[in-house]
Amino acid sequence: MFNTITIVGVGLIGGSFGLILKEKGLVKQVIGVSKTERSIQKALDLGIIDKALPLEEAVRQSDLIYVAIPVDVTIPIMQEIMGMINDRQIVADAGSTKQALCEALCDHPMRKRFVATHPMWGTEYSGPEAAVSDAFAGRTCVICEKEKSDPDAVTTIEKVYQLLGMEVTYMGAESHDMHAAYVSHISHITSFALANTVLEKEKEDDAIFDLAGGGFESTVRLAKSSPDMWLPIFRQNREHVLDVLNEHISQLRKFKSCIEKEKYDYLKELMENANKINRIIK
Amino acid sequence: MFNTITIVGVGLIGGSFGLILKEKGLVKQVIGVSKTERSIQKALDLGIIDKALPLEEAVRQSDLIYVAIPVDVTIPIMQEIMGMINDRQIVADAGSTKQALCEALCDHPMRKRFVATHPMWGTEYSGPEAAVSDAFAGRTCVICEKEKSDPDAVTTIEKVYQLLGMEVTYMGAESHDMHAAYVSHISHITSFALANTVLEKEKEDDAIFDLAGGGFESTVRLAKSSPDMWLPIFRQNREHVLDVLNEHISQLRKFKSCIEKEKYDYLKELMENANKINRIIK
Repeated sequence: MFNTITIVGVGLIGGSFGLILKEKGLVKQVIGVSKTERSIQKALDLGIIDKALPLEEAVRQSDLIYVAIPVDVTIPIMQEIMGMINDRQIVADAGSTKQALCEALCDHPMRKRFVATHPMWGTEYSGPEAAVSDAFAGRTCVICEKEKSDPDAVTTIEKVYQLLGMEVTYMGAESHDMHAAYVSHISHITSFALANTVLEKEKEDDAIFDLAGGGFESTVRLAKSSPDMWLPIFRQNREHVLDVLNEHISQLRKFKSCIEKEKYDYLKELMENANKINRIIK
Repeated sequence: MFNTITIVGVGLIGGSFGLILKEKGLVKQVIGVSKTERSIQKALDLGIIDKALPLEEAVRQSDLIYVAIPVDVTIPIMQEIMGMINDRQIVADAGSTKQALCEALCDHPMRKRFVATHPMWGTEYSGPEAAVSDAFAGRTCVICEKEKSDPDAVTTIEKVYQLLGMEVTYMGAESHDMHAAYVSHISHITSFALANTVLEKEKEDDAIFDLAGGGFESTVRLAKSSPDMWLPIFRQNREHVLDVLNEHISQLRKFKSCIEKEKYDYLKELMENANKINRIIK
């Protein structure tokens, strides 16, 4: 499928992307670009990339440049890359927010060679060590502003994600960011806040965690996520994140009020309504 | 280990308990007691129990009576059972709250034959179909008010849980309920509330769930839990649940305030603090 690709950011997402493309024989050579020497070395050791090069040389040699770094640094690097490519190369990103990036690149003369994507997969871990070869499969990948990319570029990127086992769906960039706030960003905030709630209590009581069962683990595991990755997401998606956070706090207040005022019939209704998530999450 | 045991409530916990004791050859005969005919039939079909009997006859034949039903109905049934047993039989419960039950049984003449336990394991599913033979292992089981039970009864129950792969720990009943609020009950409330947050949004937008990834699933899966089981827990543990819920809402408000006022340095601190959960949850 590709002769050579460059992965900018060889961590959880970029690393998994490189690993799988190599395993599936979809690329002959993977070049890694990272400002962190340790990540490059680790990615080489793990066979995620074949070699490392400075950005400009890497881009020059590549059919596809795949950018998977925190969303705040994506914008300036993407503008740099777009100034280096020709009209047969393809650039794609994997960021969790799409509006700010799409706006930044909107009037770029090479905009048509860029495909804005968000593969909706991740774990709470980061770095090349977190890359896994069963990433992405069974999840949805969003492509934003499809109409602003060249059809051949979109078709190629679609095909890659489909070969990774993903279902591809299309959305406006703002619509994506709103949806992502609801089904991803808020889960991270509730986990971070839940961890802080319990850590606050732990100060008084060392023994508290001996009791933590599977339910606690699953609701709190996202609290291990990297602030370097997630802070820029909350920042770029500030308005939607605040909307859903306000709604979530008001839903929690309903539970609080029911328990406080001992309105157990209404509490039961709230729980039965929440059970409807059953028809969505298997 | 036992000739005959009775399991009152053949659902997720009771069902798993029976299944494993039989698989491990720790009991010759398991009798099931349930007021739900369908559950009894299902438990028989799944080989969880050998036969079903009315409570009094079941208790009469049993070395151990294990009660695993919602915590509100546990108290009256437990008082009934305690009136039926002799001083060689053992009674244990598996409830998620311990204070109300321990207080209710405190002055019972047979109190010494009762062991108050809480195996800290569960899933979001309920009923005999939810019973699994890898339940309990690797988790902690709390025994409360050990000093109020006969040593032989405690030793037997300890041994059973250890053979199930659990680590046994001891605690006062009130202390248990406080800890359980932090590491279990709050996780359920946040999941219920998160489900309602997103379901509220879904009314406007059918497509929202196509995007739900693994992070969302893990934070929201407890929202599938049974209101019949959880409402009585929140009710009995009202004060501790309100304490931790207030703390959690105030932690969420800190995130909200940081994002609202664009205090990103403080937001980063909050996230870095949450990362400390790493040293507790592997």
